[in-house]
Amino acid sequence: MGVIRLTIAYDGGPFAGWAAQPGLRTVQGELEAALGRILGERVALAVAGRTDAGVHAWGQVASFATERDPPAGLTRSLNAVLPPEIAVLEAASAPDGFDARRDARARTYCYWVIAAPVLSPFERGRSLWWPHRLDLEALDRCAALLPGDHDFTAFTPTDTEHVRFERRILGCEWRRFPLGDSRPGELLEHWIEADAFMRHMVRVLVGTMLEVGGGRRSVEDFAALLDGAPRSRAGETAPAHGLYLARVAY
Amino acid sequence: MGVIRLTIAYDGGPFAGWAAQPGLRTVQGELEAALGRILGERVALAVAGRTDAGVHAWGQVASFATERDPPAGLTRSLNAVLPPEIAVLEAASAPDGFDARRDARARTYCYWVIAAPVLSPFERGRSLWWPHRLDLEALDRCAALLPGDHDFTAFTPTDTEHVRFERRILGCEWRRFPLGDSRPGELLEHWIEADAFMRHMVRVLVGTMLEVGGGRRSVEDFAALLDGAPRSRAGETAPAHGLYLARVAY
Repeated sequence: MGVIRLTIAYDGGPFAGWAAQPGLRTVQGELEAALGRILGERVALAVAGRTDAGVHAWGQVASFATERDPPAGLTRSLNAVLPPEIAVLEAASAPDGFDARRDARARTYCYWVIAAPVLSPFERGRSLWWPHRLDLEALDRCAALLPGDHDFTAFTPTDTEHVRFERRILGCEWRRFPLGDSRPGELLEHWIEADAFMRHMVRVLVGTMLEVGGGRRSVEDFAALLDGAPRSRAGETAPAHGLYLARVAY
Repeated sequence: MGVIRLTIAYDGGPFAGWAAQPGLRTVQGELEAALGRILGERVALAVAGRTDAGVHAWGQVASFATERDPPAGLTRSLNAVLPPEIAVLEAASAPDGFDARRDARARTYCYWVIAAPVLSPFERGRSLWWPHRLDLEALDRCAALLPGDHDFTAFTPTDTEHVRFERRILGCEWRRFPLGDSRPGELLEHWIEADAFMRHMVRVLVGTMLEVGGGRRSVEDFAALLDGAPRSRAGETAPAHGLYLARVAY
């Protein structure tokens, strides 16, 4: 009896999210099927971040208990049977009782915005294209408001299973990178770390900050949303295909 | 009457290369069809690099003469009708007589190698996966041999339309980048600039250098290929999907 911890990257595009659902192609479903095939036993995965349909991951973490010693070369065996959109970066023994969801101390997400007049084919499906005006200083001012404890009711759908709406933001910033070789525009990465996130939370935060950056809403208006305002007062939900679960801290 | 210069990025995956061929999906074919639709006249594109099937571009340059003034917003109109794998980064007026092929002074290609035990889904189809041993110092020694004039007969198919096999390499290096966040491995970028390239030349150079890096061939053996050795003495042709036409100098 032991516990295995998996670090996983996936392109969320073709999947109906992480969580297994009957009749739908999901990351959990593909992984549990691959593990069942290799280990010869049914496993149930715990996961650090239940990503939504279309959301990507660079460093998702999942775990499962197994009756048997894991076979040598489990990482390679898994990647040989998994679809190309999912890669197990590491499969390692974890301490008894380890649970990828319950033991996670913090999650970090990254959202990619391509602020440029033209989107390159290599960015399509992996970023949000923003060919509009964007006040980067206003984005920075929004990000600076986020660290600390807030009530994020405004940033998750009203029809919710969450019962507690306070979250602690541990870090938040916009990073800027040139697109290279005289191509006009920038890659903007929104990095945000929290103890935990609610459904759609990063996407509504980014969508609302982009409304501030686009001049359709003030920084003060954004600040006023962080104290339990209703969902209707926040902005649009940014599309899933720009969002990456970057890493999990234990 | 004027000349228009296009700067183009494309994901070469779904195309049978740049050059138009009857019944095949090509980058030139798609661009000439889009231009014909928007301009209402048939145009013939000259191009800086006739990339092979599967080869990508970040900064391909093409040009065409037109009887009419180009419409305002040509870049946007083209991107609206082009398939998502092709993006026109810029469409600009060029001096009379400009020809993207004839006037190019140098081309720069970049080849991506992911030297890591696992390939991420975001790298698939856009890099060569190399999970084997790799002597990076040997790669650097090979690259250092390339600047200058050489006879590259060994680095292009025997069945060739080329008549001159000397090329001048203006710069050549391997650059190394971490894959990020405790993921083992590196991105290796092979950058090479020359006055002009022959068919498959960068791919055979990279394939042969990787044989040196993998310990199957010595640096001295690689050096001996640069003076008109036959194709049979060089190494394998690295796959197209790791190669990018990065930029063109005029």
